[in-house]
Amino acid sequence: MTLTFTPLPQMPLICLGDNLADMLLASLQIARITLEDGDIIVVSQKIVSKAEGRLVNLATITPSKEAIELAKRSEKDPRLVELILRESKEVLRVRPGTIIVEHRLGFICASAGIDHSNVRGEDGNPEDWVLLLPEDPDRSALEIRRKIKVATGNRIGVMIIDSHGRAWRLGTIGTAIGISGLPGVVDKRGWQDLFGYRLKITIVAAADELAAAASLVMGEAAEGIPAVHVRGFPYPLRESSLTELIRSKENDLFR
Amino acid sequence: MTLTFTPLPQMPLICLGDNLADMLLASLQIARITLEDGDIIVVSQKIVSKAEGRLVNLATITPSKEAIELAKRSEKDPRLVELILRESKEVLRVRPGTIIVEHRLGFICASAGIDHSNVRGEDGNPEDWVLLLPEDPDRSALEIRRKIKVATGNRIGVMIIDSHGRAWRLGTIGTAIGISGLPGVVDKRGWQDLFGYRLKITIVAAADELAAAASLVMGEAAEGIPAVHVRGFPYPLRESSLTELIRSKENDLFR
Repeated sequence: MTLTFTPLPQMPLICLGDNLADMLLASLQIARITLEDGDIIVVSQKIVSKAEGRLVNLATITPSKEAIELAKRSEKDPRLVELILRESKEVLRVRPGTIIVEHRLGFICASAGIDHSNVRGEDGNPEDWVLLLPEDPDRSALEIRRKIKVATGNRIGVMIIDSHGRAWRLGTIGTAIGISGLPGVVDKRGWQDLFGYRLKITIVAAADELAAAASLVMGEAAEGIPAVHVRGFPYPLRESSLTELIRSKENDLFR
Repeated sequence: MTLTFTPLPQMPLICLGDNLADMLLASLQIARITLEDGDIIVVSQKIVSKAEGRLVNLATITPSKEAIELAKRSEKDPRLVELILRESKEVLRVRPGTIIVEHRLGFICASAGIDHSNVRGEDGNPEDWVLLLPEDPDRSALEIRRKIKVATGNRIGVMIIDSHGRAWRLGTIGTAIGISGLPGVVDKRGWQDLFGYRLKITIVAAADELAAAASLVMGEAAEGIPAVHVRGFPYPLRESSLTELIRSKENDLFR
C-alpha cells in the first residue's frame, strides 16, 4: 500500500484559544480529503503552542543567577536561558550558541524547543517574543483526536512534531513530541525473517519515521505548512504515549 | 504536492552479480509506475550488499587479539567482532550485547551495520553467515541511478538506507547510508519566515527524513520489501554525497 503525505493548505495564522480540530477539518475539506479510519494527522508544534497561548515576551522574564551564568557560557540572552532552564530537567551540553537539555517532557533537544521564528506577539519588539513547546503534547494530540472523532466518527491518529538536531549527523529531522492513537514504537522481536530466523532486537520507531517525512512536507518554518494528512501507515493504530520513544537515562550510552 | 512512498513488490532474492537497476525497473513495471524526472528510488542496504557479494562466512574469519578482548566485553562472537573492527574507524561504546562504532564510511552505528537477518550463504551453518554494508554506498547508488538514466532517460535520485539506533530515543529509524542525485541536507539559513525573520540555523536533513518514511514502508526485515518508489520530494535534485550528513568529530558534542 502506498504511504502518502499531503500538506494541508490554507490554515489561518493561529491565535490563543483557536480550535485546531475545527481548523484541521476545514483544511481537509479545502484539500478535498475525506478522512478514513487509520489516517493520521501530523501537526506542527508551533500551531499547537500558539493555540495554547505559549507565547512569552522576554521583557517579562527576570533571569536567575544560574541563567545569567549559563547565558555567558552559551552567549545567549539571559531571559531566554531562564525560560530554557524552566522548561528543562537537566542541561547536557553548553557551547557558544548551543544549549542541549533534557526537556521536562523527557526528550533531548536544543534550547528546550523554544523558538523565535514564525512567532509574533501582540506588541513590543518582535525579537522579544518566543514560543514554548505545548504544556503536554500527548494531551494536545488526544484533544484534537477526540474532537475529530466526535465530528467525523473516524478513528485516526494525531501526532505533534518538532524539528530536532541529532548526535552524530548534521541537519534537523522531524521528531514526534506528542502522540495519540498511533504506536510510538513497533516491537518486532520474535518476528521471523525471510528464512525463519527470529529477529532479535528490532524495535522500530514508527512514529518518528512518520514524523520525519511529515516534516519534509511541512518544509520547515519558511513555507508555513503546519499540518499534514497521512494515509497508508502500515501498522495498526492503538493507544500510546510519547514515553514509548524516550530512552531512559540509565540505558543511554550517549548522554 | 503529495509526497508518496510506494513499495516495489516482487523483487526476487538477490544474489552476487545481480543487476539491481534492471530488477528495480522490472519491479516498477509490475507496480505500474512510470518513472518521472524528480522521482527517487530508495533501496535497502541488504539487497545492495548481496548483489555486491558482501556475504561473509564467519568460519573463514580468524579473530585478532583485540577482537577477542572486545568480544569478551561485548559478549559477542569474536569472529563477528573481528569483522566489526575491520569495518570501523573507532569503537565508541561497548556494553554486553552492544558495540557502537564509527563506521569506516563515517557514520555512527551499532555493530558496523553487520547483520544476520535475511542472510543465507550457499552452505554451512546458516548462523555463520553475516552481511557487511556495501563497499561504497554512494557509488552503488550512483551506479543504479546511471543505469536507470540510460534505460529510461529519467533524472532521478537513488538512496541506499539502513536502520540505525539513536542516542536518546528508543527504536531504530531508517537512515541514509548512500545517496546519489538528491540533496543530503538542505540549507535554509537566510530564508525568511512568515514575518520576514531570517532563519538562523535551519539545516534540514532532507535525505534522512526521506529515508525514515521509506523504511516505514519497507517494514524492516520481516516483510522483505527491499525498495520503495518516492514521488513528490519537495526539493530540487542535485549531485550529492553522504558526507553532507555526517557531523565532524570536532563538532559532535555526543561522541
